[in-house]
Amino acid sequence: MIKKRIGKRIARLRKEAGFTQERFAEATNYSVEFISFVERGIHAPSLEGCERIANALNITLSELFKLEEDPPR
Amino acid sequence: MIKKRIGKRIARLRKEAGFTQERFAEATNYSVEFISFVERGIHAPSLEGCERIANALNITLSELFKLEEDPPR
Repeated sequence: MIKKRIGKRIARLRKEAGFTQERFAEATNYSVEFISFVERGIHAPSLEGCERIANALNITLSELFKLEEDPPR
Repeated sequence: MIKKRIGKRIARLRKEAGFTQERFAEATNYSVEFISFVERGIHAPSLEGCERIANALNITLSELFKLEEDPPR
């Protein structure tokens, strides 16, 4: 399910970038609760939200969507 | 704006894949009107919709989000 997959990806990238959920919420202009819901695959961010998340992580949307289950191309 | 950028990208990929808007609507389980709105950047598809679009195009989400204005990484 896409919500679960993107949530796991975001959680991993956030930690790798050294953000706590609190600091990541500030950087993306989301609430900590929403970030937590996204990371657990309960909510899916909108595309505009994905762009904010990618910007906070300093990566492209394409990079953000490199989901682990995707086969290499 | 992300809606405009992804809309342009989807329109280009759809045409390259040889889909009319009608056939693409069938393949993605959207209405022709919604596809038209997405391609013109009026509506943004949800993440789940982006996945259906990527599946119809036989590409990954990461590939779908290779937007033209993104710098190479």
